[in-house]
Amino acid sequence: MSRSSSRTSRGRVDVPDLVARARDGQSRAVARLISLVEDESPALREVTAALAPHTGRAQVVGITGAPGVGKSTSTNALVRALRAAGRTVGVVAVDPSSPFSGGALLGDRVRMGDHADDDGVYIRSMAARGHLGGLSWSTPQAVRVLDAAGYDVVLVETVGVGQSEVEVAGLADSTVVLLAPGMGDGIQAAKAGILEVGDVYVVNKADRDGAAQVARDLRSMLALAERREGAWRPPILKTSAQTGDGVAEVVAALDEHRTWSQASGALVRRRERRARAEIEAIAVAALRSRWADLGGHAELDRLAAAVVSGESDPYAAADRLLAD
Amino acid sequence: MSRSSSRTSRGRVDVPDLVARARDGQSRAVARLISLVEDESPALREVTAALAPHTGRAQVVGITGAPGVGKSTSTNALVRALRAAGRTVGVVAVDPSSPFSGGALLGDRVRMGDHADDDGVYIRSMAARGHLGGLSWSTPQAVRVLDAAGYDVVLVETVGVGQSEVEVAGLADSTVVLLAPGMGDGIQAAKAGILEVGDVYVVNKADRDGAAQVARDLRSMLALAERREGAWRPPILKTSAQTGDGVAEVVAALDEHRTWSQASGALVRRRERRARAEIEAIAVAALRSRWADLGGHAELDRLAAAVVSGESDPYAAADRLLAD
Repeated sequence: MSRSSSRTSRGRVDVPDLVARARDGQSRAVARLISLVEDESPALREVTAALAPHTGRAQVVGITGAPGVGKSTSTNALVRALRAAGRTVGVVAVDPSSPFSGGALLGDRVRMGDHADDDGVYIRSMAARGHLGGLSWSTPQAVRVLDAAGYDVVLVETVGVGQSEVEVAGLADSTVVLLAPGMGDGIQAAKAGILEVGDVYVVNKADRDGAAQVARDLRSMLALAERREGAWRPPILKTSAQTGDGVAEVVAALDEHRTWSQASGALVRRRERRARAEIEAIAVAALRSRWADLGGHAELDRLAAAVVSGESDPYAAADRLLAD
Repeated sequence: MSRSSSRTSRGRVDVPDLVARARDGQSRAVARLISLVEDESPALREVTAALAPHTGRAQVVGITGAPGVGKSTSTNALVRALRAAGRTVGVVAVDPSSPFSGGALLGDRVRMGDHADDDGVYIRSMAARGHLGGLSWSTPQAVRVLDAAGYDVVLVETVGVGQSEVEVAGLADSTVVLLAPGMGDGIQAAKAGILEVGDVYVVNKADRDGAAQVARDLRSMLALAERREGAWRPPILKTSAQTGDGVAEVVAALDEHRTWSQASGALVRRRERRARAEIEAIAVAALRSRWADLGGHAELDRLAAAVVSGESDPYAAADRLLAD
């Protein structure tokens, strides 16, 4: 790629050209843009600005669930169902427990499988950075690239450990929570906080013993949750992702949620909440780096020394830092 | 406590009086100060400022290890050994897996056990707030109270899950990492990142099968870690916290580490690093609340709406937020 047309003669990245080619359906340009945002390259800001006018069209769907419920199989089945309906699909797979994590290239090849020759599908595996399987900083950036590139649906697949299902819910317009029989009792589901984040619940491996019980347990737990008048009532669907049974119904439920979200204003509210969090995170990161740069750390170092010696305290020092 | 002498007639907290009484050894005043910093009360800043001139004297020792290694028993044994040596001890126990978490009062009573009638010991259990067993925001504040109150040693006991052992290492002048036989193989220890944080390693339950093996595994793993010339070489000790065997040697090793830290400058460097992180965290929290307050969220809301509509992007919006 060193002499690719996406670089100018001086070696800088030609961002407008890359964005144009990505929007023209060139998957190499999409890949390059994701790499640029993923690596926090100097071009990150320019890329983000160039993408902005083209974002907001895609239906962003989060898919989460504990290891073993069949997330990758379900994602593949959803891609197939969406393609059958004539829609293009971008996938961001963030899975720290997957053998693909950290090896995004290998992951892409393996996962592409069914879809390798299909221009209407783009799949990207990302290593989960940060703590304990949380979505990496760059996941929302990758979603933005796929959205701007014009994919109708962007699927974000993440393993459900600890807080990541909450994070994916923050990232997505609609969140699918996957369950499966034999994965432990319903109480665990409640513990994991999934009852607050699902817009569509799917009991996968529906042909197995216990699937009906999982659905019943889930139904009674959801019935306990208080929902306001006019609120979305998450459906509970059953699938066999292996055979594809029930997957079309998941697509239909997601479309229904999308329609409801748009009509009720929930979609815009959710996206604005997400944007607020992202702006704040970027502003805080910018400040931290500004403080770190301040005269080679001198100011923060001086304040820290004053706190250690007892001349100052952390609150007074923070005031001083902010006053600079 | 509603009419306690620590409140003025107008119901405000008389912070200088509280600090004076805490330094005079009154455990009720210590408890009240910790509650004030723990609850992020309006008096938090005033308390922190009043404590500052009296801080920096205590030897702050972190104790971490996986559930089941005998942390509470070891902490109790350390308290006993320190008291036998004539030193006063404050304990902050942060343990989300403990039945005491969230129920600090009950925890205090149960834990006090041996030390309930001893004025030279103060024990406080704190619920771990924040994510996944991490040290709560208020733990460093509680340490500061105990330091300022004049306890010779402050022990911070925290469960070793995920990142919390790294956090306790950031908080403490010296960190004790506890292990025990039968807790899984050495590789797990390496994975958990404990090889970077321990200043003193203790294999507890040393009378059990496998204790020697744990020590051997640990020794070979530590031998692989590169250490600079003159760096501290963490000793590996064996204890039976139940009987108290070997605990005096742990105290001696901690004193040795303290002496080395002071002589080498490592202590001041570590404390300054900690102060920098704390100042930054406070400054960021102050900014977030400033942004949230800005005209009833209006500015951040406006920026978020511009990002969602594609008029702006998160980086440009963050610049605007910081420019205000």
